[in-house]
Formats: sequence, structure tokens, C-alpha cells
Amino acid sequence: MTAESLPPLASTPEPPYWAVIFTNERRPDDPLGYAEAAARMMSLAAEQPGFLGCESVRDADGVGITVSYWRDPESIAAWRRDVEHLAAQAAGRERWYRAYRLRVAQVVRDASFP
Amino acid sequence: MTAESLPPLASTPEPPYWAVIFTNERRPDDPLGYAEAAARMMSLAAEQPGFLGCESVRDADGVGITVSYWRDPESIAAWRRDVEHLAAQAAGRERWYRAYRLRVAQVVRDASFP
Repeated sequence: MTAESLPPLASTPEPPYWAVIFTNERRPDDPLGYAEAAARMMSLAAEQPGFLGCESVRDADGVGITVSYWRDPESIAAWRRDVEHLAAQAAGRERWYRAYRLRVAQVVRDASFP
Repeated sequence: MTAESLPPLASTPEPPYWAVIFTNERRPDDPLGYAEAAARMMSLAAEQPGFLGCESVRDADGVGITVSYWRDPESIAAWRRDVEHLAAQAAGRERWYRAYRLRVAQVVRDASFP
């Protein structure tokens, strides 16, 4: 699965599975570097064992929410420690994000429409 | 707390707490009715017992992610059954949403920056 092929709404398996909710406010710094890194991280995440899907939205004010879905906490921990991802996390704190919240949650119920 | 006063990133207590992740694709129908109802639902949710906060983003393509945070599953269940909210849910399926996913999850760990 590549990032480009990800649909806006993720199709996930029956719960339980896990979610990482990443809410953030961008700074205006280095928009080109950011866009490239964000696309790369999405592609790289999609290749990780246990990756189930991802949903990502950013509004005109620079506020974004990205939710990635994972099979289990071990998959999330492994992705968190990925070397290229660690470098992007550091760049995010130094240059790209004014503020963020990251929350790890176990999805126990879901519903969809239609 | 009113919807207007909600900051873009929610300040939530120490985990565990609960999240409702609502990802959706809008239809172009009835944008004024939708905006009014969405603001009303945000205000009404913020008045419910157990409401902890909310983060909501919509992009230019009409894809939105709203994450609301709750003390426990009982608070989520009560809000789900609220009469005015039930009417908005029905209108959402009939008029406003092309598709959505709704996921209920227990937040077990979080981090923030700065």
C-alpha cells in the first residue's frame, strides 16, 4: 500500500485494533520540506508491519489531525522507534509544529456509513 | 465551555479516558444547514456530563475528522442517545455525509509538545 493510494476514510478490520491520534498546529516554516517529509512518513508508515490504515486532514488555519490505525501496541512502538521516523519527529519539534498532542488508544467499537 | 471557546488542541486529563473518532466526507448539500447544526452539536456536546474536549478539522476537499474526548463509555453512550443529537445523526445520513467512520477508543497514553 502506498500513501498515494490511501482513501480518505480508512477501511479497518473488526475491533479491537489500535489508533494513534496526532493533532497538531503547523508553523509556517519550511513548507516544502514539511510536505515532502509528511508524504514520505505516510509512505513509510504504510509499509510497517501491523499498519492498518491512516486518515489525515489539514485545514486552512494549519491545524491538522492524522489518525493512523495499527494491529497492536507493538506495531506502534516499532514505528515510533524507526530511525527515519525518529529524525522526522525531531525535525517536527524543531521546525514544523507549533504544538501537538499525540494519543494512543485501543479502538473497541466502530460503525460506518453507508 | 462553549464550542466557540474550544482551542484547536484539546487539553485532556491523565489517561485513561475515551475518544470518539468521527471521520467523514461531506456532500455539497445544504451547507448552511450543516454549518449551523455542526456548531450546535459542538456546543451541546460540550455541555454533556463527562465531556473532556474536542478537536475538529475539515479540509478543502470536504473531508473532516472530529475527535471528541470523554471521561468514560457511559458519557459517550448518553451523548449518543441525546434526542437533539439523534435528529442530527439522522440528518447527517440523509443529507450531509457521503460516508463516515465512527470509532470509539480508550486512550491509554498521550504526549504533548511543547
